[in-house]
Amino acid sequence: MSDIADALRVTDPNFDLSSIDPQSTPAYDGKKADGEDDLADGADHLSELQERLFASSKAGSTRSVLLMIQGMDTAGKGGIVRHVVGQVDPQGVQITGFKAPTDEEKQHDFLWRIRKAVPEPGMIGVFDRSQYEDVLIHRVHGWADEEELERRYAAIADFEKELHESGTVLIKVMLHISREEQGERLLERLDRPDKHWKFNPGDIDEREHWDAYQHAYQLAIQKTTTDASPWHVVPANRKWFARLAVQHLLTDALESISPEWPKADFNVKSERERLIATGDVPEAE
Amino acid sequence: MSDIADALRVTDPNFDLSSIDPQSTPAYDGKKADGEDDLADGADHLSELQERLFASSKAGSTRSVLLMIQGMDTAGKGGIVRHVVGQVDPQGVQITGFKAPTDEEKQHDFLWRIRKAVPEPGMIGVFDRSQYEDVLIHRVHGWADEEELERRYAAIADFEKELHESGTVLIKVMLHISREEQGERLLERLDRPDKHWKFNPGDIDEREHWDAYQHAYQLAIQKTTTDASPWHVVPANRKWFARLAVQHLLTDALESISPEWPKADFNVKSERERLIATGDVPEAE
Repeated sequence: MSDIADALRVTDPNFDLSSIDPQSTPAYDGKKADGEDDLADGADHLSELQERLFASSKAGSTRSVLLMIQGMDTAGKGGIVRHVVGQVDPQGVQITGFKAPTDEEKQHDFLWRIRKAVPEPGMIGVFDRSQYEDVLIHRVHGWADEEELERRYAAIADFEKELHESGTVLIKVMLHISREEQGERLLERLDRPDKHWKFNPGDIDEREHWDAYQHAYQLAIQKTTTDASPWHVVPANRKWFARLAVQHLLTDALESISPEWPKADFNVKSERERLIATGDVPEAE
Repeated sequence: MSDIADALRVTDPNFDLSSIDPQSTPAYDGKKADGEDDLADGADHLSELQERLFASSKAGSTRSVLLMIQGMDTAGKGGIVRHVVGQVDPQGVQITGFKAPTDEEKQHDFLWRIRKAVPEPGMIGVFDRSQYEDVLIHRVHGWADEEELERRYAAIADFEKELHESGTVLIKVMLHISREEQGERLLERLDRPDKHWKFNPGDIDEREHWDAYQHAYQLAIQKTTTDASPWHVVPANRKWFARLAVQHLLTDALESISPEWPKADFNVKSERERLIATGDVPEAE
């Protein structure tokens, strides 16, 4: 088990979000250059674990991993996908971004679109935002009342229990940035023409609800962190640390499955003979 | 335009597949180590082009790219996805593998499942096998008669014309290996337990139809290579060259679109003032 993963796990039902310093690098002594080196060094191991997971599904394993990423605007969700998930074979990855629900999605329970995106056996699923939006933005803007929010926390807990029982390892990540850091990152999006497409005037409106969002996150985390599907609050002011931390979480999740190369379901010796008999097999003795 | 891409393009309607040496490296003088370096060196440019393509779709561009990969078993289709497509942000990639059609798919025209997988605006789509299976394996095994095969070539040509007109740049790639190379690669899958999961006894059965497949490929390429959607036959005995070549093809396709960073659809100056007024924006003057 990675020390970093361990340090970021939320177990306290009275967890206080403001106790986590977004600038900190829990259980990691290195600086930026070290963190970038360690991220690069971890790629091969992560990639082999992913390939084993994928391979094992071909032999009937139903195990999968789901990395669920939450965070305020500019927290670095996309960067995690690009720099961490991007280290493994894209054929083994299913990425879903959850934006404002479509008309069709609105006609169903909030978990309907979520269930449709659950990763298939052997895959690493990635949720960029998730079921939690329905207890975050909905709480902040009062689109759901307290009773409905309580129903949703319970529905989410049931859903995550189901996922766990069906063999999906769920990694719940909150990328935790400070209000100052968000201010700088939004400013950068305004000051760099190649970043303009990432800016949405609505981001500033949401920023005005900063404290309400922090409160909504804290409540959601308190109510839905469990032994089987704990939350991890990842200090994310330093992008390099957040990426290294999520790489550790993903590696841990795959190691907990410990996927094995499938055994051959054919007779290797007789297939070998059959192959050689076709001719043009230069290296065969 | 890349010299390699240029050298691999099929323009001759009487194209002879056997004239292409699978061991060759057209328009490239380097050796393996050079090829690997050049592949790594091209990653940043490819990745920026992909991000621009993705960004431009947020401003209404409908352009996309579709990389379609065909080849005999073990030709290296998966390796292309992993090592070339894997160089760009996985959020901008839609990968579809076409295996034997499902019962539902069989109830529709052969292009039905293909159309459903066409990339959305801003995306790089990847087809691992494609519409061409219906004129390759079907021809080899006589599952379709000559008249039906001719109908399919025409339907494919119409479909690809539509794609072109709708703004999708289609890259058609045949990874071309020798029968000896396939023999060695199949043997490796049998001799390495971590590769057993990739082996299917049916691969040896298909190998017995080698010449019929080469003929079916040649016909398909002759009948469907066009100025707008040409085939590229990529010598693929040397994996490093095939990967470098496909990187060039993908880069060329993106350069032909030449996607620009979208212009802001908001007032940058007033948004900047609005942001600074929220407070906690340390770097703002």
